Amino acid sequence: MTHSTTAPGAPVPAEQQEREAEITRKVLESFDGCTDPRLRQVMQALVRHLHAFVREVRLTEQEWNKGIEFLTRTGHITDERRQEFILLSDVLGASMQTVAVNNEAYGEATEATVFGPFFLENSPEIEPGGDIAFGAEGEPCWVEGTVTDIAGTPVPGARIEVWEADEDGFYDTQYGDDRMAARGHVFTDSDGRYSFWGLTPTSYPIPHDGPVGKLLEAVGRSPMRAPHLHFMVSSPGLRTLVTHIFVRGDEFLDSDTVFGVKESLVKDFEAQPAGTPTPNGRDLGDRAWSRVRFDIVLAPDGT
Amino acid sequence: MTHSTTAPGAPVPAEQQEREAEITRKVLESFDGCTDPRLRQVMQALVRHLHAFVREVRLTEQEWNKGIEFLTRTGHITDERRQEFILLSDVLGASMQTVAVNNEAYGEATEATVFGPFFLENSPEIEPGGDIAFGAEGEPCWVEGTVTDIAGTPVPGARIEVWEADEDGFYDTQYGDDRMAARGHVFTDSDGRYSFWGLTPTSYPIPHDGPVGKLLEAVGRSPMRAPHLHFMVSSPGLRTLVTHIFVRGDEFLDSDTVFGVKESLVKDFEAQPAGTPTPNGRDLGDRAWSRVRFDIVLAPDGT
Repeated sequence: MTHSTTAPGAPVPAEQQEREAEITRKVLESFDGCTDPRLRQVMQALVRHLHAFVREVRLTEQEWNKGIEFLTRTGHITDERRQEFILLSDVLGASMQTVAVNNEAYGEATEATVFGPFFLENSPEIEPGGDIAFGAEGEPCWVEGTVTDIAGTPVPGARIEVWEADEDGFYDTQYGDDRMAARGHVFTDSDGRYSFWGLTPTSYPIPHDGPVGKLLEAVGRSPMRAPHLHFMVSSPGLRTLVTHIFVRGDEFLDSDTVFGVKESLVKDFEAQPAGTPTPNGRDLGDRAWSRVRFDIVLAPDGT
Repeated sequence: MTHSTTAPGAPVPAEQQEREAEITRKVLESFDGCTDPRLRQVMQALVRHLHAFVREVRLTEQEWNKGIEFLTRTGHITDERRQEFILLSDVLGASMQTVAVNNEAYGEATEATVFGPFFLENSPEIEPGGDIAFGAEGEPCWVEGTVTDIAGTPVPGARIEVWEADEDGFYDTQYGDDRMAARGHVFTDSDGRYSFWGLTPTSYPIPHDGPVGKLLEAVGRSPMRAPHLHFMVSSPGLRTLVTHIFVRGDEFLDSDTVFGVKESLVKDFEAQPAGTPTPNGRDLGDRAWSRVRFDIVLAPDGT
């Protein structure tokens, strides 16, 4: 029997289907001897979905080559301060899908969103009401709220890591030196309350001078993220929460390039004209500022 | 409604299913504006299969992290002479699945197999009956055959690229210098015949000191490839063939780590005791050698 190569969407001849299915079967079998059942499960599922993708689109050898080149460029641009694979996972929505699978809704607990590539360990500790800016430029923003469990009980001593971009849309990891700025951690007080000065979030493009940026351009997608402030909140016995808060009314809320926006995380950042007294007496001179409230509810651990 | 995170294989609550499906829908929609219909098709299919994989195995955030780290290490070990992403595609059978999709059986045309990571452009041209070894160690092997189209018409002037590992299982690209050895190209004569001296193929492990090797070890798979000699055969108007020939009787034929073996590509490499006269009068002194015949049939172009 002779025939041309099957086009995507056209019916694949039965004999050819069998030839392709046989390859998948052999590859699946090669993992049968894996003594770690979870690893076997993950690898066999990965193989099934990967092969199904190749068969469905009738991936050409040229496209396969482009894929190898794309992954190679993504690997080569990744270093200790730039993680292009996380960006890739983010813009394909794989990060948000993983977040969804791992953070099933739990009562009134605050929703999670993407971690992103900009978290750093060992951020500076900030006193209650202190400033995380450390020289990062932007409009000051008073952030306050409480941390409670789902029964409404305050959680004292919860660790709140916060990090964000400056007014030009850059994180400290993009400054090209080793400075930490616009990040820090605070602890809740004995009533579960916290507060700090951050910066009013502004929109910014994800780093788009690399392979992921080129991909977004090729498919006609914007690299812009909706303005946000990152939180990671942890306390023993409670589920660690990784999330953001977003700015109500922003133009990019509906087209966030990493699909991170959830309605419950959109908050009112209230503009405060210059001269408005600040909550903790900080003197901002003739600068305007903003304020936002974010009350955080943590689910029980193991949920 | 409150519940624990769903375990792999357990039924996912309907509300949670809807939340996860909604993320996939949003990501698929983000590609709707792509003006290249093929790129849109490939990216949307990739997103569907990737998300389905994450949902099916209930991928944990720790596993997602391991995946990001694995891809990062794979990128960092890849350079101009080592292509770990191709190895990864090979050991997951994605390469053979792509080969199958792009090289549907066509009459009596010779079957294709994986390209592998060791091809180099600009190999030396070898005269008919010449030697491709260039100092690579191994038992000499006389290789001869014809190139015809599916009607049996000889194809003169077909370009045949060949490359293989030495008797220690290393390609020249693994020598650590810029030497080319055990590779070259020959052309068929006016009757479509070709011949050259290569090396009797020996089994070898794929490079297994990197992330792909560690993956194979973790899942209990061998890194060994069945002994083979690579061919790439091209002629205007005919489908370029990328294939290997394998050694009949070898122990690794059934467990080739890249799933490249096809029965039609297993050939008799006939042992020739020392002193047996060679086909072109080459003096091999007291060395044994082998010989193999490989008649190649090319499908029409565009099939």
